[in-house]
Formats: sequence, C-alpha cells, structure tokens
Amino acid sequence: MPNSEKPQRKGLFLLGYLLFLVLSGSAFYWIQHEGHLLSMSLPSFSSSMGAAAHEQINDLLQVLLALAVVIITAQITGAIFQVLGQPLVIGEVVGGILLGPSLLGAYAPQIQKTLIPDQTLPFLGIIAQLGVVFYMFVVGLELDLKVLKKSGHTALAIAHAGIFFPLVIGAYFALYTFKDLSLPGVPFLHFALFFGISLSVTAFPVLARILSDKKLNKTKIGTMALTSAAIGDVTAWCLLALMVSLTQDSFGSVIRTTGFTVLYIGAMFLLGAPLMRRLIPVFEKFDRITEGGIAVFFVALLLSALATELIGIHAIFGAFLLGAITPHDSRMAKELTEKVEALVRIVFLPAFFAFTGMRTQIGLLDSSEDWTYCLAIIGIATFGKFGATLMTAKLSGFNWKESSALGILMNTRGLVELIILNLGLDLKLISPRLFTMLVVMALVTTLITSPLLSLLRIKPEPQ
Amino acid sequence: MPNSEKPQRKGLFLLGYLLFLVLSGSAFYWIQHEGHLLSMSLPSFSSSMGAAAHEQINDLLQVLLALAVVIITAQITGAIFQVLGQPLVIGEVVGGILLGPSLLGAYAPQIQKTLIPDQTLPFLGIIAQLGVVFYMFVVGLELDLKVLKKSGHTALAIAHAGIFFPLVIGAYFALYTFKDLSLPGVPFLHFALFFGISLSVTAFPVLARILSDKKLNKTKIGTMALTSAAIGDVTAWCLLALMVSLTQDSFGSVIRTTGFTVLYIGAMFLLGAPLMRRLIPVFEKFDRITEGGIAVFFVALLLSALATELIGIHAIFGAFLLGAITPHDSRMAKELTEKVEALVRIVFLPAFFAFTGMRTQIGLLDSSEDWTYCLAIIGIATFGKFGATLMTAKLSGFNWKESSALGILMNTRGLVELIILNLGLDLKLISPRLFTMLVVMALVTTLITSPLLSLLRIKPEPQ
Repeated sequence: MPNSEKPQRKGLFLLGYLLFLVLSGSAFYWIQHEGHLLSMSLPSFSSSMGAAAHEQINDLLQVLLALAVVIITAQITGAIFQVLGQPLVIGEVVGGILLGPSLLGAYAPQIQKTLIPDQTLPFLGIIAQLGVVFYMFVVGLELDLKVLKKSGHTALAIAHAGIFFPLVIGAYFALYTFKDLSLPGVPFLHFALFFGISLSVTAFPVLARILSDKKLNKTKIGTMALTSAAIGDVTAWCLLALMVSLTQDSFGSVIRTTGFTVLYIGAMFLLGAPLMRRLIPVFEKFDRITEGGIAVFFVALLLSALATELIGIHAIFGAFLLGAITPHDSRMAKELTEKVEALVRIVFLPAFFAFTGMRTQIGLLDSSEDWTYCLAIIGIATFGKFGATLMTAKLSGFNWKESSALGILMNTRGLVELIILNLGLDLKLISPRLFTMLVVMALVTTLITSPLLSLLRIKPEPQ
Repeated sequence: MPNSEKPQRKGLFLLGYLLFLVLSGSAFYWIQHEGHLLSMSLPSFSSSMGAAAHEQINDLLQVLLALAVVIITAQITGAIFQVLGQPLVIGEVVGGILLGPSLLGAYAPQIQKTLIPDQTLPFLGIIAQLGVVFYMFVVGLELDLKVLKKSGHTALAIAHAGIFFPLVIGAYFALYTFKDLSLPGVPFLHFALFFGISLSVTAFPVLARILSDKKLNKTKIGTMALTSAAIGDVTAWCLLALMVSLTQDSFGSVIRTTGFTVLYIGAMFLLGAPLMRRLIPVFEKFDRITEGGIAVFFVALLLSALATELIGIHAIFGAFLLGAITPHDSRMAKELTEKVEALVRIVFLPAFFAFTGMRTQIGLLDSSEDWTYCLAIIGIATFGKFGATLMTAKLSGFNWKESSALGILMNTRGLVELIILNLGLDLKLISPRLFTMLVVMALVTTLITSPLLSLLRIKPEPQ
C-alpha cells in the first residue's frame, strides 16, 4: 500500500526527494549556464518588447480594477439606499454617477483616472452592454404574457394613456426647448419623439422590485401596475424602434427598418414561441437541464439581440423579446434566471450604471436656467404620467386612492429610462447636458415613488 | 370592478381608446409640423454624426456575432469529440483553432474577417481573460485541500517528479532549439524555464473531467492522480510566477516579485483562510445565501486577481488561490460554482479557446523540420511526464499497471497549458511558431489520454 508510512520509510522518502530536487536543480543550473552563452551572441531588445507585453496585460489589470471599484461602490450605495427605504437599484445608479465626472471626476480627477482610465472605457462599455442584453433577457423571462392577456382592456388603456399623453405633452414642450437643448443637425421630429418617449417610460423591473419590497405584488393594484408597465415597456420599445429607424436618413430605410421589425416580432411570436413550447419539454425531460439546452438559449439570445441590432433597433429589444416569449413558469426559465442573474446583477449591471455615470455630468447644469429646465422636465414627466394614469384608472372603475397609487407607481422610471437615454446619446439625438437633465429626472421620479406610496398607506391585501 | 366587461362597456371602451389615439396622433402631428420649421433654420450635418454613432454600436454587434459564432462552434466540435469518446473541452479547443488562421482564416479569410474582425479581438481578449479568471476560481473551488494533506508524501513525490523531470529535460532540449525557436532578445534562462514549464504542466480541470467520465474519480488511482495534479498545478503556477518575475529585467524586481508572491500566498493561507472560515458560516446562516455574500466573494476574487496581476504574476493565479482556500464542501462554494459555471463554461471559456485559436497558426509549421520539432516536443513531453510519474508511482508501491495509468493521466495538459502558452506569447517569450507547436503538443497529449487509458482496461472499483 502506498500510503502506509513507517518512520523509516519516511526518512528514506525525504532523502530521496531531496536528492531528486538537488539533482534537478544542478542539472538545470548546468543547462542554463551552457545556454547563457547562446543568448550572449544574440542582440537584446527585450525591454521594448517587455513594454509592449506590459501594455496588453494592463488592459486586464485596469478592467479588474474598474470592476472591483464599480461593484464595491454599487454595494455600498445600494445598501445605504435600501436602509433609507429606497430600491437597491437607485442606490446603484447613484453610485455610478458618483464615480463619474459629477463627483469623483470633479473633486479627485487623478484618482478617477487611476481607477477607471479613459482607455478602459470601451471595455467597460462592451461589458456593460453585454450585461444589459443579458439583464433584459432576464426581465423578459419574468414577464407573464398570460396575465397580460387576462387583464385585458384596462391595463392596455392605462399603459397607453400613460405612454401617449406624456409623449404628446413632452413633444409640445420640445417646441420651446428644441433650440436650447437639442444638438445641431438633429431634426425636430427625432428630437421631439425621443424627448417624448423618454418622459413616457415606466421601468418594469424597478416597479416589480418596489412592489415586492412593499408586498404589494399580489394585490389588485400591484398586478394592474405590473401588467400596464409590461404593456408600456413593449409599446415604448416599439416606438423607440420606430424612432431609431427614423434617424436613418432615407425614407427607404425607415420602411425597411419598420418592415423588418414587424417581420421580426411576427417571427418571434408565430415561429419562435411555438418552437419554444416544443423544445422546452425536450430539454426538461432530463433530471437536470443539460449544458446543451442552456447553450441553445444563450445562442438564441445572442442571435436575437444580433438580429435587432442589425435591423437597426437596439440589441436589448431582441434580448427582451426572446425572454418574453419563453414561458415564464417553465423550469427552463427558472434555471436560466438562476444561472445568469448573480453575475449580471452583481457584476455587469453596476458596470452599466458606472458607464452611464461616466457620461452624466451634473456639473453641466451650471446655470439657474438649466436647473429650471431640469425641474420643468421632472414636473412635466410626473404630471403627464401620473395624470394620465390617474384619470384612466378612475375612468376604469378604480377609486381615487387606488388610482393615485397606480399613478405614482407608473411614474417610476429607473433602469429602462437609462438604457433609452444612453441610446439617445449614442445616436447623438441629445446633448450631454440634456442627457444629464433626463438622468436626474429618471432618478427623482423613481426616488419619490416609495415615499409617496407610503403616504397613501396602501395595505397589502391578506392574499 | 374594473375587469367586469359587458359588451356595451367594451364598445364604449374601444371608442374612447380610438378617440384617444386619434387625438394623440393629431396633437403630435401638429407639434411636429410646428417644430419642423424650427429645424429648417439649423444647419444639418446629421449624416456624419450618424456614421460616428454607427461605428460605436458596431462594436456591440461584432461582439455579439463573435460570441454567437464561438459558442455554436464550441458546442458542435465539443459534441463531436464527446461522441468520439474524448473530453468535451478538447473539442472546444479544436473548435477555437478551426475558427482561427489555421482553417477558416486560411481558406475563407473574408468570412473569418466578417465574423471576427481584427477590431473585435481586443474585446474578445478581455472577455476571454475575465472568463479564465472566473474559471480558475471555480477550479480552485473544486480543490479539496484536506485530501491534499491526507495523501501526503506519495502525491507530492509523484507531482514533483512529474514537474521537475520534464522541466529539466525540456531545458536540456532547449539548448538545441534555442537558436531556432526563440525570439530575438529573449535570454536563454527565460526561454528554457518557460519551455520546461510548458512541458511539465498537468491539467487539473481536464483530468478531473476525464476521471469522472470514466467513473474513476473515486478509485485509488483517480484520487492519487487528482491530488498529484493539484499539487502539480500549484507548483507549476509558482514556477511560472518565478519565471515571470525573471522577465522583469532587474535583479531587484525579481526579489520584489518573489517577495510579494511569498507574502501574498502567506497572507492568503494565514489570514484569508481563517477569515473565510469565520465569514462563510455568517453568510450561510440565511436560508438563501444573499446577494451581498456573493458580491463579497466576487469583489475578493477581483481583488485577489488584481493583486497577483499587480505583483507581476498572472491574475489567474490569484483567482485560483482564492478558490483553493475556500472550503470546497461549503454551501457557499457550491452556490458560487452554480451561479458562475454556466456563463463561464458556455460563453466565456469558448471565447478563450477562440482567442487562443486566433493566435494558433498551424500554417506556420510548413517545413518537415518544423513538424520534426513538433513531434520531438510531443515525444519529450510525454516521455518526461509519463516516465517520471511511472517510476515514482512504482517506487511508491503501486503496481506496473496502476503506475502506467497514473503516468498516462498525468500527461494530460489541456486548458492550463493553453493559459500558460498565451502568457508566454504575451510576454514575447516564445514565437507564434513555437506557440503553435506547443498548442499541438497540448492537444495531442490530451487526446491520447482517454484511448490509452481504455487500453489498460482499468476497472472502476465497486465504490
């Protein structure tokens, strides 16, 4: 038996082992001595090569450092906001903004450049965007299309009133702000449409979190709010897709983008969804869902995101839609969520918030005029969303208190708004200044949701 | 009640909804008409801006495309190799090579440039490296330090014989190949050490997979092979760390790197491990391990990887070591593995294989001399590793058949070898030609493991 070790054997073993090490060492020393003469005869320019190699390795070092900083900040600010009774995600967004030029960059630019240098931003950007693609997939997975069908007209009315009313008053407001806030060269139609959409968004994921924090997610109001938000999300993404297609200059490209978008959505619902209903039971036959099954979904996710990105609407739309057509109560959906969520929530989403924060410069709002604009935007966004929802809900048969609660809930903007704002900035539809105003608006409207809701004292129903 | 819908109400609702849509549409049309006049007065240069925005979006598109291609290829080649009785991972490595200049790039360069253009490679590289960092963490999590202590001397002897013997004969071989295969400016010592280490690696993760495929992982031989491979891995990484520190030109930096490495390893075992034994029960108190607990581990992982990268040894060493000091049978380790494994295994590792494949050019081995070198390298690597393991095992009390099986198992190189080879290429220690030879060697030595083992007809013990 190899493992029965008597003291005598142990001594012998030690001796043999040491002998072996000494022999190996001596042999290597002799070889290196011989070889040293070889390298003497060759020219040496290793220092420049070392530098080149170093530069490449530094990318990884900087990305590791940036991610560590981003996660730590997000965890701390997230925890602080949770203690204050706010949803975690708002804290993470604020953390991202603090890392950017608004705070750290303004007061300690040297530290900021060391932690997240400019050359690292493209990598952070790709990681952030990949993260959002995976995140929107998870959000889609949570969506229950069946509830959507059941709640019917009322949810549709609330959702669309809450989209189109703010959109129209936002567009009207754009008449007065276009000259001041738009970028040169942007046609009014694009600007007004984007501005209107950015006021009319409801953040489905943040709303879901607030409702479950307050244990309202199973109540009548909670279900109605979630369903309306889901319909609103889909509508907003469609409008956004239309808008993005408008930015492609020629009329032909608008037709093409719209056509392909309709075709794509049709294909997903008419071919994708039935295919999925057949495929998922096959994957689920096994005791554990195999790696192959999950790989199929990952590939489908990447291809769906790729398709919408190719069409000209954003990759996240494809990711979200694939998630949405996956039956949300299937074991596949649960396993996918479980396997993706932690990395996405902890590592990738904070990277997105930091990336957004890097582009948000509170310092750009340096005049009282800017802050007046900012306040006006907050006011209009809240008035449009809250007012439209309140009235529609009241007309649909809810009482005033319930209608107010719905109005407050639908005014939550959060993450989805930030994704759309980044898109507008990428497409050069809005200036960094307007971007910052809209980020502030998104933050404020989300921040006031929880306290206002508490004021109403809506009680969770006894299930 | 909002949802009790009589036909009459339904009609009224539809009318109201349509009216609302028409009103919104008309309002928007009027606003856009007014605003159109505004934008007429401004200069238009949106086409150039559109192009700039497009370029930025394209990065995401290309990364999505590259990842989709990489995953599909890895799944297909992985499945083919599994059918052939080979470990999945080898198929994935071959898939990566096929995507690179060895096949796709050589016969359809246009397609390859479309699928994975040069500008996407840096992003693929960072994703690949992050993936390997997370993967090595998971490998470390699987490592059972207690078994390592128990099996004691024999495993140590087998591991170190299997490291130092191939290292010495590799270094000796380097005397004859230095002029032909090294890069100008590389000192012989660096070259010989790197060459020797690259011959002496055993792939702990691949070995673990082969053993569990063959149901040998609970047998005496299986445990011994795994334990030796683990010790071997740690030793090889330490040697590698020493070697990397040598490439930093001055003697002072060698001392510094070695000092910091010792300090770092000491801190991990003397401070990190006890801290972890205290922290983990706290995290595990909750029914589900909270996001905060997992975030703490992710941050620790990034910081540990960052520390080793800063010291000058590779980030993966820090990731591996953090995993290794985490009690492998704790619930924390299991949850971490579960939450990270799928994304890492399916998305990130294939990206690493593709990244490696992009740098492997089988076409560089175009003379019979090159292939002779390549064969010689395979022969020496196998002779060194198999021979040393066989003899040590026999001396330790195993019979010839068992000793041969151990020798065959320890000759598996797989993934760890590829990580080390990429490091050597990054540090400009080896030429792309030698890199390719060593990749071929890694593939061949891993490929022959399963068939040779079958020849020996080792039976899994009845548990």
